[in-house]
Amino acid sequence: MKEEKHIIGYEFSAVGTETFQSYNPGTDQHNGYLFFKATEQEVNSAAEKAAAAFPRYSKLPSSIKALFLETIAAQIMLAGEELIAVCSNETGLPKARIENERGRTVNQLKMFADLLKEGSWVDARIETALPERTPIPKPDLRYMQVALGPVVVFGASNFPLAFSVAGGDTASALAAGCPVIVKAHSAHPATSAIVGRAIMEAARKMNMPDGVFSLLFGDGTTTGIQLVKHPEVKAVGFTGSYKGGKALYDAAVTRPEPIPVYAEMGSTNPVFILPEIMETKGAEIAAAYAGSVTLGVGQFCTNPGLLFYQSSEGDQFKPQLKTAFSKTTGGVMLSPGIAKSYQEGLEKNRKAAGVEELATSNNPSEGKNNGTPVLLATAAGTFRSNPSLSHEVFGPASMVVAVTSKEELLQIASDLSGHLTATVHGTERELAEYGELIHILERKVGRIVVNGFPTGVEVCSAMVHGGPFPSTTDSKTTSVGTAAIYRFTRPVCYQNMPDALLPDELKHDNPLAIQRLVNGERKLI
Amino acid sequence: MKEEKHIIGYEFSAVGTETFQSYNPGTDQHNGYLFFKATEQEVNSAAEKAAAAFPRYSKLPSSIKALFLETIAAQIMLAGEELIAVCSNETGLPKARIENERGRTVNQLKMFADLLKEGSWVDARIETALPERTPIPKPDLRYMQVALGPVVVFGASNFPLAFSVAGGDTASALAAGCPVIVKAHSAHPATSAIVGRAIMEAARKMNMPDGVFSLLFGDGTTTGIQLVKHPEVKAVGFTGSYKGGKALYDAAVTRPEPIPVYAEMGSTNPVFILPEIMETKGAEIAAAYAGSVTLGVGQFCTNPGLLFYQSSEGDQFKPQLKTAFSKTTGGVMLSPGIAKSYQEGLEKNRKAAGVEELATSNNPSEGKNNGTPVLLATAAGTFRSNPSLSHEVFGPASMVVAVTSKEELLQIASDLSGHLTATVHGTERELAEYGELIHILERKVGRIVVNGFPTGVEVCSAMVHGGPFPSTTDSKTTSVGTAAIYRFTRPVCYQNMPDALLPDELKHDNPLAIQRLVNGERKLI
Repeated sequence: MKEEKHIIGYEFSAVGTETFQSYNPGTDQHNGYLFFKATEQEVNSAAEKAAAAFPRYSKLPSSIKALFLETIAAQIMLAGEELIAVCSNETGLPKARIENERGRTVNQLKMFADLLKEGSWVDARIETALPERTPIPKPDLRYMQVALGPVVVFGASNFPLAFSVAGGDTASALAAGCPVIVKAHSAHPATSAIVGRAIMEAARKMNMPDGVFSLLFGDGTTTGIQLVKHPEVKAVGFTGSYKGGKALYDAAVTRPEPIPVYAEMGSTNPVFILPEIMETKGAEIAAAYAGSVTLGVGQFCTNPGLLFYQSSEGDQFKPQLKTAFSKTTGGVMLSPGIAKSYQEGLEKNRKAAGVEELATSNNPSEGKNNGTPVLLATAAGTFRSNPSLSHEVFGPASMVVAVTSKEELLQIASDLSGHLTATVHGTERELAEYGELIHILERKVGRIVVNGFPTGVEVCSAMVHGGPFPSTTDSKTTSVGTAAIYRFTRPVCYQNMPDALLPDELKHDNPLAIQRLVNGERKLI
Repeated sequence: MKEEKHIIGYEFSAVGTETFQSYNPGTDQHNGYLFFKATEQEVNSAAEKAAAAFPRYSKLPSSIKALFLETIAAQIMLAGEELIAVCSNETGLPKARIENERGRTVNQLKMFADLLKEGSWVDARIETALPERTPIPKPDLRYMQVALGPVVVFGASNFPLAFSVAGGDTASALAAGCPVIVKAHSAHPATSAIVGRAIMEAARKMNMPDGVFSLLFGDGTTTGIQLVKHPEVKAVGFTGSYKGGKALYDAAVTRPEPIPVYAEMGSTNPVFILPEIMETKGAEIAAAYAGSVTLGVGQFCTNPGLLFYQSSEGDQFKPQLKTAFSKTTGGVMLSPGIAKSYQEGLEKNRKAAGVEELATSNNPSEGKNNGTPVLLATAAGTFRSNPSLSHEVFGPASMVVAVTSKEELLQIASDLSGHLTATVHGTERELAEYGELIHILERKVGRIVVNGFPTGVEVCSAMVHGGPFPSTTDSKTTSVGTAAIYRFTRPVCYQNMPDALLPDELKHDNPLAIQRLVNGERKLI
């Protein structure tokens, strides 16, 4: 049994007595790695080190922080095949998927490094003095975004690399200038340990302050809450269940000093199929939908768990869905807990009055922690009268809801709670006709997809991976893309500060050559 | 007795039975206006009308919203001398001050109108499709800020125009595209009614949807909490006491759907005087400080309530402070409650062990609700051992604290909680020597003022009027300046949306000619 320790700044630690093991959901066996749960002393030590690192780390030039992110990316690649193998064992995800996800992880780090090197993200605003103005002179005022403070990041089960130890939350927080403490997800602790050591090594190589990064293992309910409640922690990033995210939010807002929690808590990502396109492209849409629902055994936050279609006499969409879904394939799920929740959630919906099982995969998966794709169907009336049918079932299941009229479709859209995404399929003509549907959905989600599917979240400047509650605890942010950096910053204004003491971003000569808003005009000077 | 009614969209309402009267703190008499407290039915009606108005109002072109803001400004000016007289009566503030504040109020509305007309504030981000990319094509993604939903604004006692019914919060929320419900401050209800009618009239002239604006009278603890708890309300703006702001925050975060509360809850705005400048410009600084503390009878959020100076043998700063402060003048305070709280807070500090009364105004104010300037003094050791000395006393009082060394000064700065501002006076040489002080303060406040005083908050693009808790409930925002608009927006991403259905801000041809980030490059196309 290999013992793995917490990373607290530049030290390894394992003073606790409670332990747990890494697990392989495919073989249903332990993996040979033993982990200690963090003690309160270890939590405090990580938080205090992060607080001590914050002043120096946040003030490093952007170019140095960018190099740090790039060095993390390089160290992750240096972890090589071991990382891929361990991660695949712990998650049941195929090696090819892990390799792709490693690519995304490394690219996210590089994207934030590029954002820092370009530099304009700080939103520099300058108003120059008008000393002669009457009745009172106008002072020189200079504004920019600065780092918030130590950030706690909770690794996600479903992205063991891209939303875990060195994932999007960590990358954006480090880019913002915030030290990061990661609470590893217990479903892939050995993967987390490898990535944690890669970040530790990158920090050493770049001579970062001790405490810029720590990695702790433990339960969300104890270690997680202790971290969120620690007075030195100033923000929290989380991707996971509603229950988990809401518990962290509740802990954070009842602190003596409340702090922001950016919890992405999932969504059923409703899909709307309009009549004309259904008639002309029904089979194609059904196939793409079945693919989106079952991709990665349905374990994506953007998995489409609900599909509404406007049925009409003699339409062929239901048999088309049945055909498409029968051809899908299941597989091993991320953990025994997730596989069990999937079965339970599915059973609850399957047994609900007025719900039929429209299709299951023709290739049922036999393994112990496997998830088999299932497509349920119901009528709009049943759906509207049973709110539990709209709850997310995390896994390769979805529910199709036959709607009888445009009015009913609009009503269902209006009744939706907040989601990460909504999708509409329609011909150009009918999309215009259903403009109101798009306007309603705009108020319900962070991203509207037209004639596509929500899985596949592009990492770029224009992405919004977020949405109104309960899909997240803060609809004003995104956890994917460059705008994610603003979760971990706040503005500061310097009034009449001598040029030499200003941050480079705000100096008179604009030494970093960034775009700035100067007396209301956007310019590079 | 003139009866004033609530404004609920385009209707007047007064169905309640509880009433209160407008009050003149100068004469200590009622003013002749009677107000009804809002019933729960009236709260619901205002919230439901706001929700009904939201889809249409938020989708109006920016140019129309800009005209609406300008029309509000014009209607406020049309209210003429009556507004000035009523406001002066209700608040005890001199007419000249009210006229200035009306100017600021109107200019804030125009500033947001200009921001809308220019249009780039929506932070448009476009990533164009790469349909040939492998292994998966890149979709077309377009991102912009959209309105959050109905906003509740709480009028502030100390800015009866600029932070009340048509003040900064209302202007920024309406600019963002959010309907506004104002809970009028009970210290200036008749002023609020006049401004409310001006907005109602502007809404009528511009044919705005019914419910874009409502104005309710009532208690913060009942009407206020009912508004914050209403499911249709999506954000809250507040300026006032810690107790009031924190109660609204606690109500908002425990809703079934939590919402953001932007509460500006005051601050003691610490001032640091470094030794060299104290020696050369002590008398001048003392005079300016005394002026800043007593401006508007000390009733500004940015009033400097604490001054730390590095004392040395034989320094003349204490007598200089005494001389300057003796020349100040008090006056009538905003309300009997505020005058009483001022006396109580002052007495508590005055009686604290180790605190001396260094100076009081030579022109004591005799009126019943008057506040007389008082300057207290203590030593750093006393200050550090008695946390209650750091609490805000709202009014024309301040406390000077003699510090014995640079180390002690830095320690005091490190121990500060969050404040709106911090101020440092120093020669250019010693500001550089005290660079660490500036870095510490940067982590504690929203605005750092050098060789000036924090009162006088410039309304512009580069202002930050905000700061870490407990000065506000959200350090990531400002309530003054153009950036205040982002409190009431969230991002939405459109994936593969046909050009005709996109908002104008994101259309291919950029019909509004706004600046956009296109494939990572900032451009006007």
